[in-house]
Amino acid sequence: MQTDSLGDRILNGERRALARAITLVESNRADHRAQAAELLGQLAGAGRQSLRIGMSGTPGVGKSTFIESFGMMLTAQGLRVAVLAVDPSSARSGGSILGDKTRMERLSRDKNAFIRPSPSQSHLGGVARRTREAIALCEAAAYDVVLIETVGVGQSETVVSELSDLFLLLLAPAGGDELQGVKRGIMEMADIILVNKADGDLKATATRTCADYAGALRLLRKRPQDPEGYPRAMTVSAVEEHGLEQAWEEMQTLTQWRRDSGHWDTNRATQARYWFEQEVRHALLARLETPTARAEMEQMSAKVGAGDLSPSAAAEHMLASLGVD
Amino acid sequence: MQTDSLGDRILNGERRALARAITLVESNRADHRAQAAELLGQLAGAGRQSLRIGMSGTPGVGKSTFIESFGMMLTAQGLRVAVLAVDPSSARSGGSILGDKTRMERLSRDKNAFIRPSPSQSHLGGVARRTREAIALCEAAAYDVVLIETVGVGQSETVVSELSDLFLLLLAPAGGDELQGVKRGIMEMADIILVNKADGDLKATATRTCADYAGALRLLRKRPQDPEGYPRAMTVSAVEEHGLEQAWEEMQTLTQWRRDSGHWDTNRATQARYWFEQEVRHALLARLETPTARAEMEQMSAKVGAGDLSPSAAAEHMLASLGVD
Repeated sequence: MQTDSLGDRILNGERRALARAITLVESNRADHRAQAAELLGQLAGAGRQSLRIGMSGTPGVGKSTFIESFGMMLTAQGLRVAVLAVDPSSARSGGSILGDKTRMERLSRDKNAFIRPSPSQSHLGGVARRTREAIALCEAAAYDVVLIETVGVGQSETVVSELSDLFLLLLAPAGGDELQGVKRGIMEMADIILVNKADGDLKATATRTCADYAGALRLLRKRPQDPEGYPRAMTVSAVEEHGLEQAWEEMQTLTQWRRDSGHWDTNRATQARYWFEQEVRHALLARLETPTARAEMEQMSAKVGAGDLSPSAAAEHMLASLGVD
Repeated sequence: MQTDSLGDRILNGERRALARAITLVESNRADHRAQAAELLGQLAGAGRQSLRIGMSGTPGVGKSTFIESFGMMLTAQGLRVAVLAVDPSSARSGGSILGDKTRMERLSRDKNAFIRPSPSQSHLGGVARRTREAIALCEAAAYDVVLIETVGVGQSETVVSELSDLFLLLLAPAGGDELQGVKRGIMEMADIILVNKADGDLKATATRTCADYAGALRLLRKRPQDPEGYPRAMTVSAVEEHGLEQAWEEMQTLTQWRRDSGHWDTNRATQARYWFEQEVRHALLARLETPTARAEMEQMSAKVGAGDLSPSAAAEHMLASLGVD
């Protein structure tokens, strides 16, 4: 009896095979990296072009509840949904987003959904590559939608937006003054802002908050690739499962527009070139990440800070010790 | 008859020696670089800690006139003033800021002033190191104030602010709507905003513009290292030489506060460590800057953009060709 290869099992939509493959791409072991590269080569071009939806949101905004409700709505339409997480902080904080699948109990039991907790990697460069490869695996497994969730730590939103076709920002109802809390750069990434918790006592506040964000979005420069009225702010209630279909319609409208205008393809090509360059630069700079190099950088930096060595002289020492001429 | 060395002549305050030394640090020739390194080593710790004032401003704001008036006011007080320029675009645009000393005719004839046009270097990393070394030479020559001017191109403001003790932003009178033109990041760098051209017909507009910027500055987070009321916006007229002394008083107050609080020293140490790290990273990435590497990066990038190669596979090719394992 012949066993199907891991690649075949992924192509057949076996979730356990997909999970195992993602474990391979997340591994730092050289043999795993080699197997991952072979697998990715084998699967290249297979499956479909998923809609990659990046998502960020402030803590406490109800991201898990939203992903569960939104994901269930999509699977109810016959779509297959994968959920990935980018959390460069998880190695430090211990608790990871999506680390506990029980937070999305219904969705994780849905056979058309695949949920992958965040890998325990503190290095953003590594996280980006692994997430990119995990997305490629999900596309090979023919998922229609890949949701890439991030916590707003460091540069993780930038990474996720460079991996996504659409970027959602999930926000909580709040007083006008609190708008300041969202960094302008994050606002600029958002294609659609969803003000969650538009239910019960918070409904009116959510509507006001949404209007405030809509106003803030109008102040941002319109993107030439998008139709009038985007980026857009809307209210949703993940708990009451309200507004989710309208949100999905907006995403589809925007996606279709971008596909028709050619921006979709251009954007994916630009992203791929970006990641190629990032990977080369990352590898060149990796010589500074060994324990020896880190220790020596630290030592040199202390001398520079104390005024005992000029920055240039210290750099020359360091480069000589790295064997760079 | 023994000739004084270049270093001795710089220590003696000879402007021509200083100019020649800056030409050495700006050169790409290996023998010049070696001479420059030796000279900088010889002069390390000599002279004085100048006040390094970074300066940026929108085109047409009257930067040259301001530098001339402000510089003349300082030299009239017996201070020695050096003016350097950071303009990564000068190699391309042909015309460089400060390229024409006749724009500052009076100041360039003043024996207590030294004006250095921008080097023709299009590479920001290189410009930063050369400017840092030029500042060190000016300090060895015991200039009291080093003004570092930049045009607002690319990241040049960031470079200048990382080289400065104080950062001035020179702006023109304008309607409220035009405030948007100044990038928030630049606003955040400014210690003092000077609204120039507060003279003649523009006086009232300048006062209003100043109030608008003062309001905008209050919205930015106060820096813990600064006294109440900073960053601050003021009006000046470079043409009528009005407000310059008040501006200089503000700079001195802020400087004294930072010296007393220890922030001055901390800031310089942080900057030195930053430049050390930048220089090491820059040298590691320099392998991508050879004509061969650039051509190959471009070729690989095109394949990645066309979907013929994955970003990771292309990066592996590229790294192999660079001899990085």
